[in-house]
Amino acid sequence: MKSETIGFVGVGRMGANMARRLRDVGYSITSIYDTNRAVAESLAKELGAAAPTSVAEVSRSAQVIFTVVTDDAAMRAIYFREPGLFSHAAGRLFINCPTISPAVHIEVTKRGAELGAAVVEAPMASSMTHAREGKLYMMIAGSQTDCKRAEPILKDLTVSLRYIGGPGKAAELKALVNMVMNINTAGLAEALGLADALGLDLKMVTEVFAQAGANSRVLETDGPDMLDREHSTFFAAAHAAKDSGIALELAREEGLHLPLLEASKAQYDEMVRFGLGELDKSGISELTFKSRRPAKPI
Amino acid sequence: MKSETIGFVGVGRMGANMARRLRDVGYSITSIYDTNRAVAESLAKELGAAAPTSVAEVSRSAQVIFTVVTDDAAMRAIYFREPGLFSHAAGRLFINCPTISPAVHIEVTKRGAELGAAVVEAPMASSMTHAREGKLYMMIAGSQTDCKRAEPILKDLTVSLRYIGGPGKAAELKALVNMVMNINTAGLAEALGLADALGLDLKMVTEVFAQAGANSRVLETDGPDMLDREHSTFFAAAHAAKDSGIALELAREEGLHLPLLEASKAQYDEMVRFGLGELDKSGISELTFKSRRPAKPI
Repeated sequence: MKSETIGFVGVGRMGANMARRLRDVGYSITSIYDTNRAVAESLAKELGAAAPTSVAEVSRSAQVIFTVVTDDAAMRAIYFREPGLFSHAAGRLFINCPTISPAVHIEVTKRGAELGAAVVEAPMASSMTHAREGKLYMMIAGSQTDCKRAEPILKDLTVSLRYIGGPGKAAELKALVNMVMNINTAGLAEALGLADALGLDLKMVTEVFAQAGANSRVLETDGPDMLDREHSTFFAAAHAAKDSGIALELAREEGLHLPLLEASKAQYDEMVRFGLGELDKSGISELTFKSRRPAKPI
Repeated sequence: MKSETIGFVGVGRMGANMARRLRDVGYSITSIYDTNRAVAESLAKELGAAAPTSVAEVSRSAQVIFTVVTDDAAMRAIYFREPGLFSHAAGRLFINCPTISPAVHIEVTKRGAELGAAVVEAPMASSMTHAREGKLYMMIAGSQTDCKRAEPILKDLTVSLRYIGGPGKAAELKALVNMVMNINTAGLAEALGLADALGLDLKMVTEVFAQAGANSRVLETDGPDMLDREHSTFFAAAHAAKDSGIALELAREEGLHLPLLEASKAQYDEMVRFGLGELDKSGISELTFKSRRPAKPI
């Protein structure tokens, strides 16, 4: 057994697989919290952990706390709604994995430092399978001391761990990664929608794209799903809207006008408006294929 | 020597390298025409060909005529302004490589058929080096009989030759390829511009993009050039504007609203308006980096 005890707040599919991986390599998972009680209890049972009803109990019972929540509001709630995670802060290490606004990471990191806690942000660019196998691509940001402390445990989860900079910097870069991914996905969906309208063989179209300047990671990951209308969620359109929104807010703060970012954000927002927000981001093709387009917003 | 004689209309860098390649594998290049007389004469001298002042002389002196002109207007001029290429049409094979509107290809193909000529469209997705080495990726469209006739000679130019469909279909697909490439390029330039404003290390940013969902062919081809402001022309922004314009026109005809296509077209148009149309498409980063943005349209 490794000596450090670990707690988890937020155990969607990524968080759950990270917890499983850490248990496998010898850490003791002491407690698990999720707003979905059934999910938390089931995973806690599987991993021999407690499933407390308060996040404060997670930080009481563990030396290292991973958070994998969905958005700014959830992040603020677990840290700043009393009794919050910082009820037990001194000497503890908080590793925050959500893709959220840099400003919220900075706020949490600052408060943690005041209370004697180490706080790092560690967003990832990977799939659930990578999480389960300890093969995540992860970025890390925070003070160098805090990042050094987090390094050994994060190495057990990753194939690539890259130090980005001070608080907020990994969150900025993660927002940029998803901004580009979302633009490329939205653009691909437009081209395939037009190809469909023109009566071209869509499989051939994607094969030609792959050989040419149109090639991209999302062509591989989302292209076939757009053709097959296979939109079971790996990365929800609602999350794409949120992440592109973070990038858009950063652009506004910097006084930058970025029209493709704006257009792509509007498309993911449109998916949400049409009740398609829980589809995978590949579901944006439901907007761009003439034959698929939903009748009206819900 | 191979038996067929070949003429070229339009010998920019792609056309010139295609002609050189065909000469190398044993074809006789009989005549070369370009609106830039000096360029035509220099290449003609190199290849032992004539450099006539009329395109009609090209089709008189060759059995196979390659056209590699820039746009719809140039294509219409060489075929429909008398004396045009079809002054000598019967029995000849015309291979049209420009990325232009499908409708113009259809118009030329139809007129050629009436006159007893074989006409194919053969747009390519490759670089000048590929052209020189006979390693082009090429699409081909037209009647199956005409495409069959063009196949042996095109095999001498390509590593991949793909039959797309009847007249106009390869041009449609080529417009889609460039549409996606142009969107991905414009999106990448926005993300790097924002990363620059945020003070992130841009080389690190592109490395992280490459490992994640933000990866793309244009990240490889244009990312480093955006960082280095190295915009010597491989594919001019003005061409990007033209090609995205072809896709946009097709979308309008199909009644499709494609916001990222529109936003990207507007950005390349903006480059032209700012006097940046002759930069490589990577020069779109001149619009999205705060410190680079030109003062006003010319």
